Amino acid sequence: MLRRARIVSGAFCVWVFGSACASSPPPAATEPPQPGPVVVTSPSATPAAPPVPVEAPDKLTADPLPSWKDGATKQSILGFVARVTTAGDPGFVPTPERIATFDNDGTLWSEQPIYIQLAFVLDRVKELAPAHPEWKTKEPFKAVLAGDLRAALAGGEKAMLELVAATHAGMTTEDFEQTVLRWFSTAKHPKYGRLYTECVYQPMLEVLTLLRANGFKTFIVSGGGIDFMRPVTERLYGIPPEQVVGTTGKLRFELRDGRPVIVREPAILFVNDREGKPVGIQNHIGRRPIAAFGNSDGDQQMLEWTAGGAGSRLVLLVHHTDGEREVAYDRTSPIGKLDKALDEAKTKGWLVASMKDDWKTIFPPGNTAVPPTPKAAPAPPASPPLAIAPR
Amino acid sequence: MLRRARIVSGAFCVWVFGSACASSPPPAATEPPQPGPVVVTSPSATPAAPPVPVEAPDKLTADPLPSWKDGATKQSILGFVARVTTAGDPGFVPTPERIATFDNDGTLWSEQPIYIQLAFVLDRVKELAPAHPEWKTKEPFKAVLAGDLRAALAGGEKAMLELVAATHAGMTTEDFEQTVLRWFSTAKHPKYGRLYTECVYQPMLEVLTLLRANGFKTFIVSGGGIDFMRPVTERLYGIPPEQVVGTTGKLRFELRDGRPVIVREPAILFVNDREGKPVGIQNHIGRRPIAAFGNSDGDQQMLEWTAGGAGSRLVLLVHHTDGEREVAYDRTSPIGKLDKALDEAKTKGWLVASMKDDWKTIFPPGNTAVPPTPKAAPAPPASPPLAIAPR
Repeated sequence: MLRRARIVSGAFCVWVFGSACASSPPPAATEPPQPGPVVVTSPSATPAAPPVPVEAPDKLTADPLPSWKDGATKQSILGFVARVTTAGDPGFVPTPERIATFDNDGTLWSEQPIYIQLAFVLDRVKELAPAHPEWKTKEPFKAVLAGDLRAALAGGEKAMLELVAATHAGMTTEDFEQTVLRWFSTAKHPKYGRLYTECVYQPMLEVLTLLRANGFKTFIVSGGGIDFMRPVTERLYGIPPEQVVGTTGKLRFELRDGRPVIVREPAILFVNDREGKPVGIQNHIGRRPIAAFGNSDGDQQMLEWTAGGAGSRLVLLVHHTDGEREVAYDRTSPIGKLDKALDEAKTKGWLVASMKDDWKTIFPPGNTAVPPTPKAAPAPPASPPLAIAPR
Repeated sequence: MLRRARIVSGAFCVWVFGSACASSPPPAATEPPQPGPVVVTSPSATPAAPPVPVEAPDKLTADPLPSWKDGATKQSILGFVARVTTAGDPGFVPTPERIATFDNDGTLWSEQPIYIQLAFVLDRVKELAPAHPEWKTKEPFKAVLAGDLRAALAGGEKAMLELVAATHAGMTTEDFEQTVLRWFSTAKHPKYGRLYTECVYQPMLEVLTLLRANGFKTFIVSGGGIDFMRPVTERLYGIPPEQVVGTTGKLRFELRDGRPVIVREPAILFVNDREGKPVGIQNHIGRRPIAAFGNSDGDQQMLEWTAGGAGSRLVLLVHHTDGEREVAYDRTSPIGKLDKALDEAKTKGWLVASMKDDWKTIFPPGNTAVPPTPKAAPAPPASPPLAIAPR
């Protein structure tokens, strides 16, 4: 199993740990926002009317994207939805083919300063430590327990696999689901001071709702662990488990005292990142999406695959341009690096949504939207964004 | 790639070729039909009213299962649907959890005398032969072209992999889909004389419709190739590609002259059979089904996994008991062997639907339901069911 996992562990390393596995880049710089046109290969050039939400006819006059500032990006999204849902329009798409795929980390929820799944790994190591006294002196656990992620990752693939095995494997799928749910019920983001489940992007929630109201099936297509996301995606995004595509661990069915269980093994079956995303889409969905949303180079191939089909297409990159309300990062970020895909967006005319300029709000209301005071916040990390702040 | 495929090729061999890979068993015998009760672990014992189809309120008084004879099996299915959809009933199940999974070969469509996918493999070899003059003298192609499947399979795993590589790989997913669709548009079943797409079981189509009308999401969970089934499942069963789970080949995303394509590789990523079925269900659906339908030992673990959950459960085996209208086979059949699962059905109280005693009709009306005359039928195979009859 380890041998098989090793084959894909480079990509897996990127999945949980970002490019931090490899090097420590300079602080992230931010590009100016690059809103662009909707990619529509159909000959329709008629200005589009706002789409009619099929599930909420009483809201005909309401703005379906209230958290989006008026502008080219918002109008391009609304225009696309209008075209694909207007019978007789050259851009019309039959309902069964209205497939939209969304990256998760950095597109639907926060991914800075570290992936939420990595925060889970680190917390789990601390939670399990009392039952593993040997971890006090054994790397990479010793470094994790000391809050030194950089040292933990110095052990490379072997260290990474040990951390994943200790936190994601060796239990049934049902036990893992409960573990994940328990963690999400209390774990908070170090900067925003709100639950991780509240670190989702309100404007993207509105896009999800708009698309579904217009007959789309919405899918998550993420490099993150499929069974780490599923326990919360229905509540957070309205996306049921069967519409989540992600990196998949090896599983084993067995009977334990006559009771059937599925056990999580310490090996990876499929890495759903970069070139893996179109493959994961084919394996799980079996249709090419007509709309895809991402935020990093890990999404580039998914966007290429989506844009490459015939007929109406909507391809959008979320650009993290807002250093005040969120985090500004792109070409040099160790997590969520957006470089080649940003270049391709320019040449291909993909939409680029600037969080600073296109979004009125970042997170949903009704929570502690104000960042915690420095005292309440974790101690400044020694070498951001890799140090582990105790929660 | 070949090395990886070899790991799973034993199961893969069973997938395409049945246990014929290994030995040639005696003719199939048929067990008496074993109708049993619906598995319901909730304490409800109230006699159930027929379910209300949510999508067709005008058909309240119509029989939703007209091709099923009245009897215990039919009443058990209707009772289960009534319980899970009746608010306040202890067996009630919320709509998002109404997941039903169906095996395909032998459960939704015919699998005798050979799997439909194997018929495709053999036809494709013949179709491609003119471009491969070397096949005239090269095994296993030579044997396939001579109509001798037994000799072809004598080459074991290597031969099998060569046949699959020649017929399923080395092309884009889009080209493969078109190839499959073209084949299905003309290929006919050697016994029934009708298109393979018409060799589906009418009573099971009614179960699919009944469940969907009552809020169920219906999935195929088959040992067959996922991308072989998908081009036709929506038309045949009303099941869209994203609700098909099957054995999955390795795929590769690439840009060809700037155009994104997904290429089929000659290797297997995942075998969705036996212990693989609950794993495939977890990976694709992420929820345990509350209803599952199969017909062979390859479905045993899926039925165990489904029956093993709490609350209302419906677990059903289709028993091929009708040698006149279809084919009678079970414990000793090289294809669709039903032995251990039949024993478990007895001890666990799973439903067993006898095709002879529970089904009024086998195939949908409106086609050539009369078997072709011997002259029109293929020549009697030399060693049934393995010989290849030219079509």
